[in-house]
Amino acid sequence: MTERRIRALAFAGSLRARSYNRALVRVAVARAPEGLSVDVFDLRPLPLYDADVESGGDPDPVADLKRAVRAAELVIIATPEYNQGVTAVTKNAVDWASRPPRPQAWDGKPVAIMGATPGRLGTVGAQRVLRESLGNLGAYVMPQPRLLLSGAAALFSDELELIDGPTLERVDGFLAAAAAWARRFVETVGQ
Amino acid sequence: MTERRIRALAFAGSLRARSYNRALVRVAVARAPEGLSVDVFDLRPLPLYDADVESGGDPDPVADLKRAVRAAELVIIATPEYNQGVTAVTKNAVDWASRPPRPQAWDGKPVAIMGATPGRLGTVGAQRVLRESLGNLGAYVMPQPRLLLSGAAALFSDELELIDGPTLERVDGFLAAAAAWARRFVETVGQ
Repeated sequence: MTERRIRALAFAGSLRARSYNRALVRVAVARAPEGLSVDVFDLRPLPLYDADVESGGDPDPVADLKRAVRAAELVIIATPEYNQGVTAVTKNAVDWASRPPRPQAWDGKPVAIMGATPGRLGTVGAQRVLRESLGNLGAYVMPQPRLLLSGAAALFSDELELIDGPTLERVDGFLAAAAAWARRFVETVGQ
Repeated sequence: MTERRIRALAFAGSLRARSYNRALVRVAVARAPEGLSVDVFDLRPLPLYDADVESGGDPDPVADLKRAVRAAELVIIATPEYNQGVTAVTKNAVDWASRPPRPQAWDGKPVAIMGATPGRLGTVGAQRVLRESLGNLGAYVMPQPRLLLSGAAALFSDELELIDGPTLERVDGFLAAAAAWARRFVETVGQ
C-alpha cells in the first residue's frame, strides 16, 4: 500500500536572490520524499496589500497566489526573521491569501513553517508571529518538528547548497512530518 | 516657562486612501498640543524590502524615511491590524528604517503606537507585535496610555473625520502623553 501523495506549495518570505530561505525552498523541492511533491511560488511579483487596488479586482499575482494556496494540500513557508518578527514579504502573502471569497484560502489549510537566518535565534520570533496569524485564520500549522536554522552561513555552500549533514537530516524529517501532517487533513476519497 | 516643543514624525501602515489609520494620523496633526508638532510621512512610495535593491544604494523613499525617522524626536505609528498581526506596510517601514548605518534609526527613539480598526480588538495584536520588534531595536515605546480604537466605522464620519467626543479626548490625552514621553529622552541642551 502506497501513501497518498501530498501536493505542496512552498514560498520564501524574502526577495533577495541569494536568500537562505529561497535556498531552503529549493532544498524542500529537491529532497521531497516519495509521498510529497513541492511546487514553488515566487512572491516577487506580489504588490503590497492595498484595499484600493483590491477593490478594482485582484492583480494577476494575487489571483495566482490565492489559487495556488487553495489548490495546495500543504503550504510550506520559509521565512526569514527581521527584528524578531515576520518579514513584510511573508506577512503580505499571508494577508493577500486571507482575503475573500469565503472561506478564505487558509481556512483548514495544513501549513508547515521553516526558517533560516545567519543569526542565532533561528527565526523563532518570526515563526511565533506567523503561527499566531495563521492559526487565527484557521490554518492547521504543524506544531512539531520545528525547523529553525541558525548560523545559516555555515550550513550552506557559496552556491547556496545545504551541505550540513545533520541539517539535511533535520530537513528530511521535517518534510516527512509535514507530509504526514497534511495527510491527516486531506479528503480520503475512495479509501 | 514653556515646555520644549517636540518634533514628531507620524505614519500610517495602510495604503488605502480611506484608511482609518491615515485619518488618525491627520487627527494627530490637527490636534497636536502646543508642545508638539507632527509631520506626516507617506509610506506609499516605499518598496518592499529587498537586500539586492539595498546593496545598490537606498532608493529615494528609503533614504527619505531613514532621514525622517533619525531627525524626529518622536515617531507616532498608526497601524491597522491584519490577521492579529502587524501589516506588511508597517513592518516594512520599521525594517527599512532599521538598516545601517549604525546606530540604526530606532536606537533610542521615542515611539508612540496607535491604531484603529473596524473590528473589535482595536489593533491590540498588531501593537503587541510592533512593540516587540521596536523594543528589540532599542526604541523607547511608550507603555501607556494605549490608543486602541475598535469599531472605527462608528467613530469617524463619512468624510473620515473623527467625530466621537470621548475618542477625541482619548486622542488628546495620548498626544500629550506622547510628547511628555519624548521629552524625557531629548537632549536638554542649555537647560
